[in-house]
Amino acid sequence: MDNSNILIRDAKPEDCDQIITLIQELADFEKMPNGPKISADVLRKDGFGEEKMFRCLVACDGDCLVAYALYFFNYSTWEGVNLYLEDLYVTPAYRHRGIGTKLWRNVAQVAVDRKCNRLDWVCLGWNKQSIELYKSKGSVNLTSDEDWNLFRLSGDNLRAFANNTQ
Amino acid sequence: MDNSNILIRDAKPEDCDQIITLIQELADFEKMPNGPKISADVLRKDGFGEEKMFRCLVACDGDCLVAYALYFFNYSTWEGVNLYLEDLYVTPAYRHRGIGTKLWRNVAQVAVDRKCNRLDWVCLGWNKQSIELYKSKGSVNLTSDEDWNLFRLSGDNLRAFANNTQ
Repeated sequence: MDNSNILIRDAKPEDCDQIITLIQELADFEKMPNGPKISADVLRKDGFGEEKMFRCLVACDGDCLVAYALYFFNYSTWEGVNLYLEDLYVTPAYRHRGIGTKLWRNVAQVAVDRKCNRLDWVCLGWNKQSIELYKSKGSVNLTSDEDWNLFRLSGDNLRAFANNTQ
Repeated sequence: MDNSNILIRDAKPEDCDQIITLIQELADFEKMPNGPKISADVLRKDGFGEEKMFRCLVACDGDCLVAYALYFFNYSTWEGVNLYLEDLYVTPAYRHRGIGTKLWRNVAQVAVDRKCNRLDWVCLGWNKQSIELYKSKGSVNLTSDEDWNLFRLSGDNLRAFANNTQ
């Protein structure tokens, strides 16, 4: 399909309202509709304020954002600075046109330009279609291959532990 | 055991040689001795240079570093700024004294002070002793509970994908 009308560019502060809409769409797809809790204002401050906590690429059809890839640089004590892809999402009407792969490739280019050796992300095990694509490009599943498990301490448990009451 | 001689503090640039030694010890413990590839100079530049890519707490017995916790702030599109704990390690002679838990708690305090709602990390599935400790404080295993899998595209595969040749 012709993607000549689709522009991929760095996100701007004024994109945040549309990005929040896409974040909610992704959470709905992941079957966790109550996940997103931040507002467009928080996203704007965190991404474009004094301390930039993330970066974001967007795919646009005119004024309409149809996909986004939100990422940041993380750190490995083995390899130094790497890139972590937090979200990559294409709105349903624009799927099966290669926009997601193009966006993913642009993120990979950012990683290579920054001399990162790794691009990491997480994916739900039932999302077989995405996993197939990832593997076709040489990605490895570190959970199934090396038994890495993701842990989280959050909310009241985090605060109780920090306060030494648990 | 008496830990009154153990001081926990933020790492300084001059700690990096000893931190690199502990990073190698951790890789040996994880049965991946060939993992670490960065030098003390790279660690110094990345942690204490113009752009701070990580932060680190250390536990000291006099001039000797006996444990470290290396972390950075990451970003969730659901909850905003969070804390990611990359490494937490105590050298064998100082284990079973609560130093690791104290260091972990200090990291949790940093997270709470920064108003993070989540502290995330990964752990190898065979490391049952650590996992038991994590769970005793209310941590959840997002891999077993929600089927999140960690993926990586790295090295030549990353560069080939970025260059559109794969």
